[in-house]
Amino acid sequence: MKKVKVGIDIGGTSTKFGIVDLNGNVLFRNSISSKTHSDVRYFMDDLSETIDRNLKELGTDVVLDGIGIGAPNGNIHQGTIEHAPNLVWKGIVPFIELFKDYYDVPMVLTNDANAAALGELLYGAAKDMKDFIVLTLGTGLGGGIVSGGKLLYGHNGFAGELGHITVNPVGRHCGCGKRGCLETYVSATGIKRTVYKLLADFTYDSTLRGISFDNLSAEMITKEAINGDKIALEAFEYTGQILGTKLADFIIHTDPEAIFLSGGLANAGDFIFKPALRVMEESVMPIFRGKVKLLPSGLNSQDAAIIGASSLIGLKM
Amino acid sequence: MKKVKVGIDIGGTSTKFGIVDLNGNVLFRNSISSKTHSDVRYFMDDLSETIDRNLKELGTDVVLDGIGIGAPNGNIHQGTIEHAPNLVWKGIVPFIELFKDYYDVPMVLTNDANAAALGELLYGAAKDMKDFIVLTLGTGLGGGIVSGGKLLYGHNGFAGELGHITVNPVGRHCGCGKRGCLETYVSATGIKRTVYKLLADFTYDSTLRGISFDNLSAEMITKEAINGDKIALEAFEYTGQILGTKLADFIIHTDPEAIFLSGGLANAGDFIFKPALRVMEESVMPIFRGKVKLLPSGLNSQDAAIIGASSLIGLKM
Repeated sequence: MKKVKVGIDIGGTSTKFGIVDLNGNVLFRNSISSKTHSDVRYFMDDLSETIDRNLKELGTDVVLDGIGIGAPNGNIHQGTIEHAPNLVWKGIVPFIELFKDYYDVPMVLTNDANAAALGELLYGAAKDMKDFIVLTLGTGLGGGIVSGGKLLYGHNGFAGELGHITVNPVGRHCGCGKRGCLETYVSATGIKRTVYKLLADFTYDSTLRGISFDNLSAEMITKEAINGDKIALEAFEYTGQILGTKLADFIIHTDPEAIFLSGGLANAGDFIFKPALRVMEESVMPIFRGKVKLLPSGLNSQDAAIIGASSLIGLKM
Repeated sequence: MKKVKVGIDIGGTSTKFGIVDLNGNVLFRNSISSKTHSDVRYFMDDLSETIDRNLKELGTDVVLDGIGIGAPNGNIHQGTIEHAPNLVWKGIVPFIELFKDYYDVPMVLTNDANAAALGELLYGAAKDMKDFIVLTLGTGLGGGIVSGGKLLYGHNGFAGELGHITVNPVGRHCGCGKRGCLETYVSATGIKRTVYKLLADFTYDSTLRGISFDNLSAEMITKEAINGDKIALEAFEYTGQILGTKLADFIIHTDPEAIFLSGGLANAGDFIFKPALRVMEESVMPIFRGKVKLLPSGLNSQDAAIIGASSLIGLKM
C-alpha cells in the first residue's frame, strides 16, 4: 500500500494538480483549464475524472490520503472560494462541500499563495526560516505570509491577499471592484497592461506592436526584453519599481528574513528582481536596509503550489 | 510577600511606568520626562531612583519579579532600542544590558505598541480575539500586530513599525530618514503639522493662529474642533482620511477582527474615528467590507502600554 496526497493549484488560467507522496515528491502532474466550465460542478467532473485516471496509472496499491487545494481568495476556515476576481466562478463557491461528492477523504482549501508558502517552508528555500513572504506573480498577485514559523490565516481566512494593496486609488480597474490594486500592475496580466500603456505613450519600434492583448504573454515580454526591445525593458522597469515600493511597506508589517517571488512573471529573473530590489532598498525604513533578501522560489515553480497544497493534509495549524 | 512587576512605557515625550500586581492591576503609576537626559545612563539613574522610591512606598513586603519595557523601535531579540526617530538617544541603545546595572531581575523590552497590544490581549478589549492590530497615536505612530493569538515579532524584532509605511514618497520629512511616513501625518505630532499646513493654505479665523508649534498639542486641537473651529475640524478630516486609506491596506496583510486606536490622538473620539472608518470601508478590498471593527482601547489609555509591558514578564512566546 502506497499512501499519496493530491495537491491542486487553481489558477486564473489553468488548474494544475499533482499526486504527491508523503515526503513531498511529485509522482505525477497534470493540468486542466480553469476557464472551460462556468459551472463549477462541470469543472469538478472534469478534474476528478483526470485525477482518478492518473491515480489508477500509478498502480492498484495507491491509497488517497487527502486532498489539499490552493485557490485565489480561498478561505481555509470555510473551505470556500469567495469572489475571486480572476476565476470564472463568481460569488461564494462552497468548493469543499461540493467536492465531497467526489471524494470521501480529508480536504483542506486555502489561498493559492498560502499553499506556495507552505511548500517553500516544508520543502523549498525557506526550510530554515521562520519569517518570510511568498508572492505568486501569475494571472493575479497572491501573497502568503509566514511569521514566527506559522502561516498567517487571519480572522476571515483571507490574510495575505497582497495583490489588493492600493498603488493608486484612481489607477487601473481591478477585478475585485477597486481601482489601482497592486496586481493590476505587478502580475503577468499587469505587465501586459503596462506594455499596452507604453505602446500608447511612446513611438519606439517594437515587435510587441504586432501582438494582440489576448495573444500577449509575460514569457513573450521577457523574450523581447532579452532581445533589447525598449518597450519590454521599460515595462519590466516600471513593474519592478512599483513592486519595490510596496515590498518596502510589506517588510514593515511582519519583518521577514526573505521575500520570495514565484510564478510566471518571476521567471523573468533580473528583469524584475533588479528594479524591485533597488527600489525596495531605497524606499524601506532605514532599520531594515540591507536586511531582507529578495529571492526566487526554491521549488520548481510548477510544483511549489502543488506540493504546498498537498502539505495542508496532515498539517497541525 | 507581595510579588509585583514594573511596566515601563518609554514615549517620545514622557516615560510612564507602573507597579503592577500579578493580575494586571496597576498599584502605583508615575512618570518622568524622556527628554531631559541626552545620556541614557542619567535617564536610567533618574528612572530607577523614582521606581525604587515608589516600590518602598508600597511596603516592605513587596518583591520585584521582573521589568517589562515598551519603547519605540524596541528590539525584543536584542533588548535594544535602535535608531528611534522620536527619542533623544540616537543609534543603537543596549537598554537592557545597561539597565542590568540597576536591577538583577528578568527584563524584557519590546516595541511600545507591541506592549500595548499585549495589554489589550491579556486585560483589555481583545481578550476574546486572536487577530487584531493596535495603533498607538502618540508622538509617533506605533503598531502591534496579533495574528492567530500570537504577537508578531519578525526576524529582526521590528514587525509592526506601521508608522513608517509610506503615504507619499516626496511628502513630509520623517525622523527615520525617509519622507512621507504615515506617522508624519497620523500622530499627535502629525496633526500639529497638518494644522500648520492648513493655517498656511486657508484664511479662516482660528484661535489656533495664536499658538506656537511648540505649544500646540493634540488636546488643544480636539478642544478647538469641539468649539467648531474650521481648521481643527479640517485637520481631523485630513488625518482620518489618510489613516483610513492605510487601514484598508493593513487589513489585507493580517485580516484582523479589529483595529484598536490608542494614545493621545485617539482620545479625540469621533473626530478621528469617523473619517478613518468611512475611508477605510471605501478603500478596502470588497471581501473585507463591513467585517473589521475600528475600536478605542479597552484599557485606560494611560495604562495599556504599562500593563502590556509588565505582562512581558512570565509570558511564553
